[in-house]
Amino acid sequence: MADIFERLLKNYGPIGQHRERAHGYFAFPKLEGEIGSRMKFRGKEVIVWSLNNYLGLANHPEIRKVDAEASAQFGLAAPMGARMMSGNTNWHEQLEKELAEFEHKEDAILLNYGYQGIMSAIDALCGRHDVIIYDAESHACIIDGLRLHPGHRYVYKHNEVEDLKKQLERATSMIEKQGNGGILVITEGVFGMAGDQGKLKEICDLKKTYEFRLLVDDAHGFGTLGKTGAGAGEEQGCQDEIDLYFSTFAKSMASIGAFIAGPHVIIDYIRYNIRSQIFAKSLPMPFVVGNLKRLQLLRSKPELKEKLWYTARKLQQGLKENGFDIGKTNSPVTPVYMKGGVEEATAMVMDLRENYGVFCSIVTYPVIPKGHIIFRMIPTAAHTDADIEQTLKAFTETKQKLDAGEYKVGAIPDMADAR
Amino acid sequence: MADIFERLLKNYGPIGQHRERAHGYFAFPKLEGEIGSRMKFRGKEVIVWSLNNYLGLANHPEIRKVDAEASAQFGLAAPMGARMMSGNTNWHEQLEKELAEFEHKEDAILLNYGYQGIMSAIDALCGRHDVIIYDAESHACIIDGLRLHPGHRYVYKHNEVEDLKKQLERATSMIEKQGNGGILVITEGVFGMAGDQGKLKEICDLKKTYEFRLLVDDAHGFGTLGKTGAGAGEEQGCQDEIDLYFSTFAKSMASIGAFIAGPHVIIDYIRYNIRSQIFAKSLPMPFVVGNLKRLQLLRSKPELKEKLWYTARKLQQGLKENGFDIGKTNSPVTPVYMKGGVEEATAMVMDLRENYGVFCSIVTYPVIPKGHIIFRMIPTAAHTDADIEQTLKAFTETKQKLDAGEYKVGAIPDMADAR
Repeated sequence: MADIFERLLKNYGPIGQHRERAHGYFAFPKLEGEIGSRMKFRGKEVIVWSLNNYLGLANHPEIRKVDAEASAQFGLAAPMGARMMSGNTNWHEQLEKELAEFEHKEDAILLNYGYQGIMSAIDALCGRHDVIIYDAESHACIIDGLRLHPGHRYVYKHNEVEDLKKQLERATSMIEKQGNGGILVITEGVFGMAGDQGKLKEICDLKKTYEFRLLVDDAHGFGTLGKTGAGAGEEQGCQDEIDLYFSTFAKSMASIGAFIAGPHVIIDYIRYNIRSQIFAKSLPMPFVVGNLKRLQLLRSKPELKEKLWYTARKLQQGLKENGFDIGKTNSPVTPVYMKGGVEEATAMVMDLRENYGVFCSIVTYPVIPKGHIIFRMIPTAAHTDADIEQTLKAFTETKQKLDAGEYKVGAIPDMADAR
Repeated sequence: MADIFERLLKNYGPIGQHRERAHGYFAFPKLEGEIGSRMKFRGKEVIVWSLNNYLGLANHPEIRKVDAEASAQFGLAAPMGARMMSGNTNWHEQLEKELAEFEHKEDAILLNYGYQGIMSAIDALCGRHDVIIYDAESHACIIDGLRLHPGHRYVYKHNEVEDLKKQLERATSMIEKQGNGGILVITEGVFGMAGDQGKLKEICDLKKTYEFRLLVDDAHGFGTLGKTGAGAGEEQGCQDEIDLYFSTFAKSMASIGAFIAGPHVIIDYIRYNIRSQIFAKSLPMPFVVGNLKRLQLLRSKPELKEKLWYTARKLQQGLKENGFDIGKTNSPVTPVYMKGGVEEATAMVMDLRENYGVFCSIVTYPVIPKGHIIFRMIPTAAHTDADIEQTLKAFTETKQKLDAGEYKVGAIPDMADAR
């Protein structure tokens, strides 16, 4: 007989094991001041490349005005209760209507948080005879949704359409054998770590050969891709063939909440059967009003998306010209793949933060597979030319130090805050 | 080969199948106006008994002031990103500190939403060798957490300590046989449908005989029970023996977000391993500041809890005196158990709403087992004597009609809004 707590303490997990020296610096850092390209970290100004504030809406004066007004008008409590019981309002329905229109779908359901929303939607859609086929690099919220699925799930190699075909064949014959069930394919519009778009067009083309429904998580594509910003489906010219389109408001919309858009009858099915929404409080009113305003700016100010792409192209081109490997991103997400080990990379992060005023997130296991290290940079409409130039200079100089062996193993002091 | 969408349309689910005539009235009703004991439903004033605004904080002038000020100061976007990556602040840490103190625990972790928070905490705590034992009437968020658990889970009959002992014996010998694993017992401080407290004291006493850890979801007890409002553990004198104490902010705090309090080393383990927090946006700043203020009022104004209990006692006593069955509630949650079928109960709900100005939620399957119907009433500090008297009169008169067979089957018109 073992004690659960004792067992937990024996292994604090992949990130937790480093918490003594990482807390407050590498993990749970505090960025202070107004959200923008320059904030404070431990008292010093840094150029921030870690926030998914793609369109710069977080601190846009029109957004700040509406956020403040809506909170003054409604307070943060309203509405109380789940939407099905007592938490429904005209504003929630209006936002659903506008999101559906924007995504060229019949209907949309608002979700109180992206993570539980998509998890629970996957749960609502699929029964035990259904097979879910998903991309190997799907986000944690999709994986946790799959974990609720009582039926089979088949994974395909990241963005490899040939492997997806194999899994579709496997699922099709499995379903024919059991005489029951359908197939749901789940992928992403933009993969948040590597920045490569899901091959949506090629996946949609498979519908000519195979029978399946497609759910796309476009968290990073919404607002950043496509002529109108409607996302990766619009960008690739296959929005109509995406059966269910999901996005969070936590990125381009600089907010919380999420939505799924699709055919009215299916969205209505989700509305009446999605446990995380039926049994949890409705999205608070100021967020609904604030998201209506964000969507309006996103639609009416294409210059925000143009500015985002100006920044993204300049940053990505500059990195490539300076010899950095940014992989195969075709979105604003800009990964910089490092060749050194974890300790060298962390020393480089510290040098960047402390001496160059550049704040990047470093991504390690379990967000990405063991052994890989990515500096993930998120350019936004709020960044300036000076931000980009200073950052390129910093990366170039620190890379020279890395190549010269200056970030050698064992050189990292304890950076944890006194707790 | 079946199509998932076609299958969904064949069975819209237990509530969804009634959506054509229920939508906008029985399901997804809109309560308009400021949150309080009197709001508008379809243009008419109603006394509202459906909102978990126990302490009346939703619309308290000091809360409204702080909600408005915090939103004006920070906007609704900040902080961006997950706490581990970029979304940590001094305010988040301060709220954790104050919640821990209030619950007499070493540490607390803030959760961005209660539903995904507790689900994911259960997932973080238990490995495949661990056995989870849970009360049969546990809330959906706990059940979904159990569904993520790869190991065994044993259910015990609602609040039956003898059955819990059986399950503990079963789990103990299972674990001894496999030579590995521990036991987590999960129950609630107050069961949200029936209003009966979990038998926490008796469960804690079982620790003398069995080895297990105890997680309590005290969503309805937090702020309403115990000398200081610290919840069902304080009320029953066993707070110290509750290993992990969970509450949402969606009830007494009239907000969103949640927390788990417990030993520092275990809370820190959760902090570094809880997927729904590591991979999702931090609780927005105005909610953190707003919750700090709510906690302060909850602690400094015992008159709010006293007023809640004045209302609760008066309502419950009045219902009992008028012959209603309110079961065995020992919390403010006030269920009224009906003897008629669903159609009679819905006709009575309509009469109450349309002709008596009393808005109650009606609870049916799948929230409670099939065949049962509960009018669930939530008294709050915001209700007045007049609200109670008018409601008791309405219930008494409509019960006479029910007994006289006036709400006969087939009498319900289509009340769905034009969509």
